[in-house]
Amino acid sequence: MTPVTQAVHAKAIELGKLAIKATTSAGSGHPTTALSLAHLTTVLMYRMMRWDPAHPDALGSDRLVLSEGHAVPIIYAACADLRVTITPGGAPRPMTMDDLMALRSIDSPIDGHPNPMLGFPFFDAATGSLGQGLSVAAGLAAAARVNTLDKSIYCIIGDGESREGQIWEAMDFIADHALTNVVAIMNCNTLGQSDFVAEAQQWRGLQRKAEAFNWSAIVIDGHDPSQIEDTLRRRAELGAGKPLCVIARTIKGWGVPSLAGMGHHGTPVTREHLNAALGDLDRKAEELGLHVDDRATNEDALRINRPPSVSAGQAKSIPVDMDTAVAANPKVAATLSEKNVLSPRRAFGLALEALGAAYPNVAALDADVKNSTYALDFAEAYPDRYFEARIAEQNMISVAAGLSSGGMIPFASTFGRFLERAFDQIEMAIVGGANLKLVGTHVGVTLASDGPSQMALADIAFMRAFAHSTDHRGNPAVTVLTPSDAVSTYSLVLAMAAFPSACYLRAVRADLPLLYDANTDFPFGGHKVLRRGASTRRLVLVACGYMVHSCLKAADEVAEGGIDVAVVDAYALPLDTAPILAFAGSGGTILTVEDSYVGGLGSELSEAAAAQKDAPLIKSLAVHMMPKSGRKPDDVLGYVHLAVADIVASIKEAA
Amino acid sequence: MTPVTQAVHAKAIELGKLAIKATTSAGSGHPTTALSLAHLTTVLMYRMMRWDPAHPDALGSDRLVLSEGHAVPIIYAACADLRVTITPGGAPRPMTMDDLMALRSIDSPIDGHPNPMLGFPFFDAATGSLGQGLSVAAGLAAAARVNTLDKSIYCIIGDGESREGQIWEAMDFIADHALTNVVAIMNCNTLGQSDFVAEAQQWRGLQRKAEAFNWSAIVIDGHDPSQIEDTLRRRAELGAGKPLCVIARTIKGWGVPSLAGMGHHGTPVTREHLNAALGDLDRKAEELGLHVDDRATNEDALRINRPPSVSAGQAKSIPVDMDTAVAANPKVAATLSEKNVLSPRRAFGLALEALGAAYPNVAALDADVKNSTYALDFAEAYPDRYFEARIAEQNMISVAAGLSSGGMIPFASTFGRFLERAFDQIEMAIVGGANLKLVGTHVGVTLASDGPSQMALADIAFMRAFAHSTDHRGNPAVTVLTPSDAVSTYSLVLAMAAFPSACYLRAVRADLPLLYDANTDFPFGGHKVLRRGASTRRLVLVACGYMVHSCLKAADEVAEGGIDVAVVDAYALPLDTAPILAFAGSGGTILTVEDSYVGGLGSELSEAAAAQKDAPLIKSLAVHMMPKSGRKPDDVLGYVHLAVADIVASIKEAA
Repeated sequence: MTPVTQAVHAKAIELGKLAIKATTSAGSGHPTTALSLAHLTTVLMYRMMRWDPAHPDALGSDRLVLSEGHAVPIIYAACADLRVTITPGGAPRPMTMDDLMALRSIDSPIDGHPNPMLGFPFFDAATGSLGQGLSVAAGLAAAARVNTLDKSIYCIIGDGESREGQIWEAMDFIADHALTNVVAIMNCNTLGQSDFVAEAQQWRGLQRKAEAFNWSAIVIDGHDPSQIEDTLRRRAELGAGKPLCVIARTIKGWGVPSLAGMGHHGTPVTREHLNAALGDLDRKAEELGLHVDDRATNEDALRINRPPSVSAGQAKSIPVDMDTAVAANPKVAATLSEKNVLSPRRAFGLALEALGAAYPNVAALDADVKNSTYALDFAEAYPDRYFEARIAEQNMISVAAGLSSGGMIPFASTFGRFLERAFDQIEMAIVGGANLKLVGTHVGVTLASDGPSQMALADIAFMRAFAHSTDHRGNPAVTVLTPSDAVSTYSLVLAMAAFPSACYLRAVRADLPLLYDANTDFPFGGHKVLRRGASTRRLVLVACGYMVHSCLKAADEVAEGGIDVAVVDAYALPLDTAPILAFAGSGGTILTVEDSYVGGLGSELSEAAAAQKDAPLIKSLAVHMMPKSGRKPDDVLGYVHLAVADIVASIKEAA
Repeated sequence: MTPVTQAVHAKAIELGKLAIKATTSAGSGHPTTALSLAHLTTVLMYRMMRWDPAHPDALGSDRLVLSEGHAVPIIYAACADLRVTITPGGAPRPMTMDDLMALRSIDSPIDGHPNPMLGFPFFDAATGSLGQGLSVAAGLAAAARVNTLDKSIYCIIGDGESREGQIWEAMDFIADHALTNVVAIMNCNTLGQSDFVAEAQQWRGLQRKAEAFNWSAIVIDGHDPSQIEDTLRRRAELGAGKPLCVIARTIKGWGVPSLAGMGHHGTPVTREHLNAALGDLDRKAEELGLHVDDRATNEDALRINRPPSVSAGQAKSIPVDMDTAVAANPKVAATLSEKNVLSPRRAFGLALEALGAAYPNVAALDADVKNSTYALDFAEAYPDRYFEARIAEQNMISVAAGLSSGGMIPFASTFGRFLERAFDQIEMAIVGGANLKLVGTHVGVTLASDGPSQMALADIAFMRAFAHSTDHRGNPAVTVLTPSDAVSTYSLVLAMAAFPSACYLRAVRADLPLLYDANTDFPFGGHKVLRRGASTRRLVLVACGYMVHSCLKAADEVAEGGIDVAVVDAYALPLDTAPILAFAGSGGTILTVEDSYVGGLGSELSEAAAAQKDAPLIKSLAVHMMPKSGRKPDDVLGYVHLAVADIVASIKEAA
């Protein structure tokens, strides 16, 4: 046994013991998964990775994404051993053994699963909901390519976890984009939570699959230090031009016979069995003939290579205004001058391209609908910062999270409806602090002809939950924007890039008349009074997106009958509701109008009004049935009882 | 050319022309994708499938799942030609050519994408959001196995669509469960919407992948009638014990040169080019030397085999009550008698097993957490009706949709948090009418130690959107249930099975004291007044799940200071709010308390109150920040300002 092998074994055992102690201290956690990674963690963190424990998030350093987040105690153990910088409450200091033993405590940054935002900047993303890490790694690698950084991204994935389809979306994406600085490491310990993994998730199956997905795949003993290191060092040779997938055969509960086999997932060692378990690992050290007390040799063998110094600063200029952007696009300019209409999605495309010119760190992704969302403008102008995600939305979102962690501002666009299949990924990205810019187009029933499979109707309810939860920066975790015209869309897209937290823009498909002058300002949380209505017993229509136009038509119609209603464009959530409630006034009535399911503007204003005395009444129009196809927006609006006539009827009832 | 080949070609051209005409009539749709399936559709629907156009949803018939739903005009064309029964407004009649030309009209059942609930029972599920059909096919095959029906399930998948990870989850699931009556047909026309498909989605890549996923894969010319038929007829031989994946090389816009190549996705032929396009197909017929007017030969060649008659009726008995279920489980009985606590998830397990005994058509799925959700009880008792989905939630949900269409009542369980990654699939299942029984466990911040990656917090906001939308049966599209104890959980799980529309049960992880007597009834929409409080200037705490217990504790605490508050368990959404508002009364105050993000009970009561005069005030406590791990529920509740002390403070403020 070489001194290095000996040192790795000794350190793996030391970390394994710490992981066991930490989970016993916490009374929960996954020591057995942690033990299966003891050697891989040691080789990676003490020998292979170029990084600096004092600056674990340095941009130039190699990265480790722990996709199977529940294995985190082994990483925490290494970080405590290496006194890696943690930032509890924002204050940096080295991690201590006491920190490790405080695992999962309410006042500790050492959370149950990886989370950089809680004070553990070693990690790039929150993980724990499975299947997402390889996509994050892809995003980190993509950002490194944009910034011409030569760094390696290691991603550890559980064998059971590899059942998640998103893993294979990421395998395709990484192969497509030749992101060969990603190394996928499959932790094949053969045990899931409730059963052995299926044959398809065993090492032979995973090797076959990885090769079919155009990766090179090599099977190793995940507890053999020299095999691990040799494989990682020969990455380029073994990869032969393809990304490398290391299939590591490991043992869940390695070194502790009483923890081997089924029935030990997520089960810490009890306090009464703790010494026996630790003793098992001591015996393992003896069996291996380790001289664990030879500190000097060990320290020499486990010397970490520091990363190159890289500065993160990127110049930015002010994006061009919409008039300039329109002038540069003859087709758009013609549409606008001939018909004075433009779709919000078209304006998004213009604004994204303008951002690309102004911000070298804006990147974009789209899921094979870039010609519908108009992300195409950016894709053509900035191909080096555009990452086609094809029809795989989950991967797209987690790649965006990785891009964000790599210093980019990622805009990810597709139909709003299809973002629903990535809501888990969106939530994980937000939890992990990703500066995510989501753009969902074709929202609401006015999409019409394609029918309910393509209409985003519940997206606003889900996203509003985050609009009222602050993220770790103190901002709304998601700012939801539903602009009603091209001018406001353009302005809000620029504002999204300048805002440091997650945003979700909902861009209508239809061509819509312009409602605003070019220089109008659209602050987040704000609204626009488009029609003031009567000054007493006020009836105020509050809408967003397409329905603003329907409300204006309804207001015109009732005006002929002598009813003078106000119309407000409430383009943002969270919404500053107080001025709108005050505008309607006590004794007034607000009618919210949305072409989506409940949970958006109606809830927003109702919650504010219901909590105060003498508030105006809030009546809400929304979609209360399953929609269907119709050839025109008006057909479907009529079908779901949201036609202008329905709004008029509601006005007359309320007036 | 054999008469059969000639007849298939002729019919394919006829259907292609109809698909072009229908999309031109609609002014939208995907004629080019339809054309790429002209021959596959013809061989399947006119020669291979055993089915009856008069009874397209007969249980014994072979099924066709069109995963790439946008290709549907070619299926509609065949159905119009075959006068397949449609059921607009519930009234069955044969589909006509006029119906076909009404494609995508608001008053037509011929929707933009497949949807059985709009009056097109040929389909088993709504498709159109991509990547879900193969999972539906798996569910149909699983149901057929349970009911010992020998029927074939054909599933057509786009090559670009196969980028969705869910497809590969389904490939694994089908191979795992040896559902060899599923035939996957990959439509390899090499064109996505915005670009050519990646190398990984081309036929060679798909063949490699399918084989790596333990399927047999055969590449054919998708426009060669005899190759298609020969392959399908030799399925068993070619599959060699594995499921068969047919990789069909096709041409997008087959037969119409002006529609070939990029830039013709989702673009109907304009009216002015219609005759030219139809003429192209006529020329194609000439090129092929077809005698399209030889009706007798054609009819003889295209004779559909009828399916066996199968009765769907299944006996059911009444499930045992909870006391009986507990008595049969010594471990649960001991816990209950010693501590008088039980977790809602534990009660779910008992109830599901009881349902299994009573309903031969109840099936269950779980995503490798069956020992945490307690679906394990059912899995062990009824292994033939339990389908382990492993760590692949999207596939699990769409399989459940397929099981439902196959006559089963599927319960699909996992952590509530992980259902988020399947929200798209859940919505598609609901749109398609699936009788889905979702069970999300470990909901809310009281999960505590595992941290935010495992806590369902926005699930209730999303699901409430559907609670207020009626499905095609006139029921809430999703009934959301958050029981506060084991008795109500047990009762509500039984009620879910008896209710014909989708339900979502949110089951808390923690052991909780029992609040109800065994015989209590829990109607959907109802609530329970657990503490009546003062009769004047009433202050009513309204909560669900874990927070009911916190509210009871807070009520006890303030009672010592002379404040007498009421406590209501509002376990269901949609909630019948009127009696609760009346109970609090004008001048009263309701304090809603939820350990999730906004969008649940607070919105529910606020919307009702804000819409009426003299309603009680509604104050809402919910989670307004990113949570973290804590060792105990109380730790995390304190962190997010939802401890009993916080409720007490809010009571004092409101009192």
